Amino acid sequence: MSTPESERARFFAGLELVDHHCHGVVRDAVDRAAFEDLITESDVPAPAGATQFDSQLGFGIRAHCAPLLDLDAFATPEQYLDRRAVLGPEEVNRRLLAAAGTGTYLVETGHRGDLIASPAEMARLAAARAYEVVRLERLAEELVERGVSAASFRAAFEDELTERLRTAVGTKSIAAYRIGLDFDPSKPSDDEVDAAVAAWVAERGRLESAVVVRWLIWTAVERGTVLQFHVGYGDPDVDLHRCSPLLLTEFLRRTRDTGTRITLLHCYPFHREAGYLAQVFPHVWFDVGLAINYVGSRSEAVIAESLELAPFHKILYSSDAWGAAELYTLGALLFRRGLDHALARFAELDAWPWAEQRRVAERIGSRNARAVYRLDEATEVPA
Amino acid sequence: MSTPESERARFFAGLELVDHHCHGVVRDAVDRAAFEDLITESDVPAPAGATQFDSQLGFGIRAHCAPLLDLDAFATPEQYLDRRAVLGPEEVNRRLLAAAGTGTYLVETGHRGDLIASPAEMARLAAARAYEVVRLERLAEELVERGVSAASFRAAFEDELTERLRTAVGTKSIAAYRIGLDFDPSKPSDDEVDAAVAAWVAERGRLESAVVVRWLIWTAVERGTVLQFHVGYGDPDVDLHRCSPLLLTEFLRRTRDTGTRITLLHCYPFHREAGYLAQVFPHVWFDVGLAINYVGSRSEAVIAESLELAPFHKILYSSDAWGAAELYTLGALLFRRGLDHALARFAELDAWPWAEQRRVAERIGSRNARAVYRLDEATEVPA
Amino acid sequence: MSTPESERARFFAGLELVDHHCHGVVRDAVDRAAFEDLITESDVPAPAGATQFDSQLGFGIRAHCAPLLDLDAFATPEQYLDRRAVLGPEEVNRRLLAAAGTGTYLVETGHRGDLIASPAEMARLAAARAYEVVRLERLAEELVERGVSAASFRAAFEDELTERLRTAVGTKSIAAYRIGLDFDPSKPSDDEVDAAVAAWVAERGRLESAVVVRWLIWTAVERGTVLQFHVGYGDPDVDLHRCSPLLLTEFLRRTRDTGTRITLLHCYPFHREAGYLAQVFPHVWFDVGLAINYVGSRSEAVIAESLELAPFHKILYSSDAWGAAELYTLGALLFRRGLDHALARFAELDAWPWAEQRRVAERIGSRNARAVYRLDEATEVPA
Repeated sequence: MSTPESERARFFAGLELVDHHCHGVVRDAVDRAAFEDLITESDVPAPAGATQFDSQLGFGIRAHCAPLLDLDAFATPEQYLDRRAVLGPEEVNRRLLAAAGTGTYLVETGHRGDLIASPAEMARLAAARAYEVVRLERLAEELVERGVSAASFRAAFEDELTERLRTAVGTKSIAAYRIGLDFDPSKPSDDEVDAAVAAWVAERGRLESAVVVRWLIWTAVERGTVLQFHVGYGDPDVDLHRCSPLLLTEFLRRTRDTGTRITLLHCYPFHREAGYLAQVFPHVWFDVGLAINYVGSRSEAVIAESLELAPFHKILYSSDAWGAAELYTLGALLFRRGLDHALARFAELDAWPWAEQRRVAERIGSRNARAVYRLDEATEVPA
Repeated sequence: MSTPESERARFFAGLELVDHHCHGVVRDAVDRAAFEDLITESDVPAPAGATQFDSQLGFGIRAHCAPLLDLDAFATPEQYLDRRAVLGPEEVNRRLLAAAGTGTYLVETGHRGDLIASPAEMARLAAARAYEVVRLERLAEELVERGVSAASFRAAFEDELTERLRTAVGTKSIAAYRIGLDFDPSKPSDDEVDAAVAAWVAERGRLESAVVVRWLIWTAVERGTVLQFHVGYGDPDVDLHRCSPLLLTEFLRRTRDTGTRITLLHCYPFHREAGYLAQVFPHVWFDVGLAINYVGSRSEAVIAESLELAPFHKILYSSDAWGAAELYTLGALLFRRGLDHALARFAELDAWPWAEQRRVAERIGSRNARAVYRLDEATEVPA
Repeated sequence: MSTPESERARFFAGLELVDHHCHGVVRDAVDRAAFEDLITESDVPAPAGATQFDSQLGFGIRAHCAPLLDLDAFATPEQYLDRRAVLGPEEVNRRLLAAAGTGTYLVETGHRGDLIASPAEMARLAAARAYEVVRLERLAEELVERGVSAASFRAAFEDELTERLRTAVGTKSIAAYRIGLDFDPSKPSDDEVDAAVAAWVAERGRLESAVVVRWLIWTAVERGTVLQFHVGYGDPDVDLHRCSPLLLTEFLRRTRDTGTRITLLHCYPFHREAGYLAQVFPHVWFDVGLAINYVGSRSEAVIAESLELAPFHKILYSSDAWGAAELYTLGALLFRRGLDHALARFAELDAWPWAEQRRVAERIGSRNARAVYRLDEATEVPA
C-alpha cells in the first residue's frame, strides 16, 4: 500500500496551490535595511550586532532561496543581498515566483499598494492567475481622502464596494488592528454610522472608529461575499490578546445564515481555536499563512496542529506574502512540505490510503479556496 | 532494559480503562444525516459537496471501525453506513463497545437522556461496569418542569441530589455553556437564589441564571462529592474564550479545603492550562477526552501535551462519547496508543523503566479515576 | 556535511550557559516533606497515597540526578532521599551544581532569601561566576519593614535602587503575582504613589498596591537597566489568565525607546506569545525556564516551540531553580538536550550548517544574556 517516494515527492512538488491571501511583491530594488524590514513584523531594525536574518525566516531564505539565485545554500546575508542586487528585482521576482509554483494568487491591495505590484503585475511576474481582494478599511479611507462628505459616505461606500466586487472575489477586514476582534457584533444604526463618519472626517487620520469598521463589515456581510479577517500574529500595532478568533464567536453566530463566507487569516498562535470555529460554524474557513514563513523549520509542527479539529474542507493555504518575493517561494515550499509530512505521519499511524492523502491535499491546496471564493465563476485579473 | 514489542503491545491493548466521563450510546438505527450529526460538534450539516466524514474523526472511523464491521479499512462512508444499517444498532453497538475494551463507564445522563442508553443499558451492551454521574443543571430543570415552586426549589433540589447521590458517583456542571467559567466564585445567598429561581420559574426555558447555577455548584461542593466541569471545546453554543479552566482559579482556591474533588473535562485547547491547575491544586484532576476522538491521527500529540505539568496521579481518561458507538471505540484505541507512544518516547529519552511506564499508564488509565470517584465503595448500576 | 555524533555531543555537553534567572540553593538538609515541597509549584502536599515524585520533574530527578549521587537511575524516592541525607547538603549541592556545568548564574535574591544561598555562596558552591538581580517588590517591602515613612519612601527607594544597581545587573518584578500583567501601563503620579504608600504603610503586609508596583517598575525602566518579569506558570497564588505576556503589549510600546531591556521569564504556556513579542519589540527577550524542569521528558517539545517567531538573538536560557540543587542540574541538562534535538531536526529538514547551529546555540546559551545584561562590564559577586 505504501507510495513510492518518487511519486509522493512529485505529487507534492506539483500540488496546485491557490494562495488565498497575499499582497504584491515589491517592484524596485531594495537595500539591506529595506530588505531586513521586509523579513520581520517588527517596525524597527534589529539591535546593534544583530540581523533579522538570524531567524527562522532568515535561515529559510538562506537555505532555499539562495540556490535559486545561483548561490550555495546558506550563503551569507551579504552574499545573498549582493547577488540579489546584481540580478535586479525583475529577475529575482521572476525566479522566486516561478519557484513558488503557485498557480493562483488572491491579492489584497489595501496595504501600501503604491509600493508593490498590482494583481495584474503579479499575474504577469508569476505567470499565474490573479484575483483581487478588497480591503474594506482602505476603501473607506480612500473615499474620505477623496473628499466624500460624511452625509454621502454610506451611499458612496456602497457604490464603490459594488463596483469593486464586480471583479474582486472577496473583502478583507483589519478590524483586529483597528478595533480588536472583541468588537460589538451588532450592526450599528445608520445614525450611529453617520455621526461616527462625521467625527472621523472632521479629524482626518486613519479609520479607527469601531462604529464605522463594524458598519463596513456588515456591509460586506450583506453582499454575501467572502470576508477575510486578520487574526492573530502581526506587527506591534496589534493587541494580540484582542486577536483571538474566539472573540468573533457571537459575530459568527449572527452571520451564519447570511450567505457570507468568513476566512480567518494566519491565526497563529490561535490556530487551534480557529480550527474549532471552522468545525462548528459552516461558514468559517481558516489558514496558518504568515506563520509558516516566520516559523521556518518549525512550520511542519504548526501545519500539523492546523490539521486537528477542522474538517478537511475548511482549511486553506495562504502565504500572506508582502513585498519580498522570497515569502511567496518559502510559503509554498514549506506548506507543501508540512502537508506532506503531516499526511505521511497520519498514513503511518492510521493507514490513510494514498488516494485519500492526495484528495485531502488537493482540497486544502486549492479546491477549498476555489469553492469558497467561487473562482470558477470569477473574473480573473488580466495579466 | 528494553521491552519486547509484543509485551508492550499486549500491555497497552489490555490496559484497564475507566472512562470517567461519557454518555449513553444511541439505541436506534440512524440515517446518514443523523450519523453525520453524531460525528461533529457543529449543529448544522456539512456544506453542499462536503461531508463530516472528511475529518480526523471520520478518517478514524473508516480506519479503525470499518474492519470491526467486516469492511476493509477506509471503506467509503456509503459502504460504512450501509453495513451499519444491515447489522443493526444492537449488533453494531455490541461489536464496537466490545472493541473499546473499557471495563468501567461513568455515564452522565443529563444530555437528551431519552435518546440514548441508560447507564444500566450501557453496562449490558458493553459487558462492563457502569456508574452514574448526575448533571446538576438538568436535575434543576427537571424539578422546575415537574412544577416545583420557587419557594420549595432549594429544599427539593437538596433532597433530589441526596437521593441521586445514593448511587451516583459524582456530579457534573455545564456552567461553561450556560454562564461561562468566569462566574462569580462565591456562593450566592439563599435570598438571591430564591429570587433568581422565581424569575426563572416565571419565564420557564432552560436554566441560564448565573445565581442558580452557582448555587447548584456550591451545593454539590458541600456534599464533598466529585464535581465535573465541562471545560474548553464543545458545540457552537459555547463561548470558548470564556471556557479556559484558568477562569476557575479563584473558585478552586475557595474549594480547596472542602473535600470536593474537581475534574476538568476535555480542556482542549487549554489542556496545558488544565495541567497547571492539576499540579498546583490538590483537588483538581483533568483529561483530554473529546479532543482525542476529534483530532484522530493527531491525538498522540495532544496526549503527549497532557503529560507535562500535571503529576501522574492527576490525569484521567475519558472518551466523552455521546451517541455513536464509534466514539467509545476510537476514544479508547487512540488513548491507549497515544499513551503508549508518549511513554515510549520518554523511555527513549530518559530511560523510564518498563515497570514505571506500566505504573504510570495504570494510574492514568484507571487507578486515578478509581480513587477520585471512590469506585471501590460505590454502587455499580445493575446491568 | 553532517557532524560526527561525538563532536555534536561534546559541543552541547560543553556549551557555555548563562542562567539568567535563578535563585539560591537551600543550604541545609531537608526532610522528605520539605524536599517534596521543593519539587512542585503546589503549596500543599500530594494527596494521600501519592507523591510529588510521580511527575515529570520527579522522574527527571530519578533518571539524571540519582546516578550523580552514586545510585542507579530510577532509584526509588526513598533510596534517593536516604542517599541525599547521607551525603549531606554541601556535598549534594556541590555535585549537582558541578554537573549542571553552568558557568554563570544571575541570582535573584527576593524570595525567602534567608533560607537559601546568597549569590556569593552560589558562586562558591558552583565554582561559577554569579551576579545579582534585585526584586523590586522585595526592596520596597524591606524599606517599609525597616520603618521608612510614606513621605520618604520614594526617595529612599530611589537611593536604595541606585545603591543596589552599583553591582546588581538587573531588576525583577513579580507584578504578575501581585497585580496581574493587565496593569495600567502608565507611570503613576508622585501624589498617587505617596497616597498609595501611605495606605500600605498604615496596613502593613505585603505589597499589593497596583500604584506602588507600577511606580517601582517605571523607576527601574528609567534607570535603563534590565527588567525581568515573571510571566505565565507559577504557584497557585498567581491568576494565570492574567499572566499572558500579551497583556504587557501597551507597556512594551511605551518603554521601547527608554533604553530598558525587558526579559520575559518562564512564559509557559504562553511561550509562543512571548516569541511574538520578542520578534516585534526590539527591547524584549524571553526564555522557557521553570517549565523545562517541570515538563521533563517533554522539554524538547517546549524548547522547540520556543524557537519559532523570536529571532535567535532574542532567546535566553534560565533554570528558574530555587532551593533544590537538582533544579540547576536538570535545567541545564534538559536545555542542552532540547536545543541539540531542535537544531538537529532543523538541520535534517533545512540543512542548517553545523557552524550555524553552533552559533545559534552559543547565542541562546550565553551570548544573548551576556549582551542584555552587559555582563562584560558588570561586577561579579565575589565568591
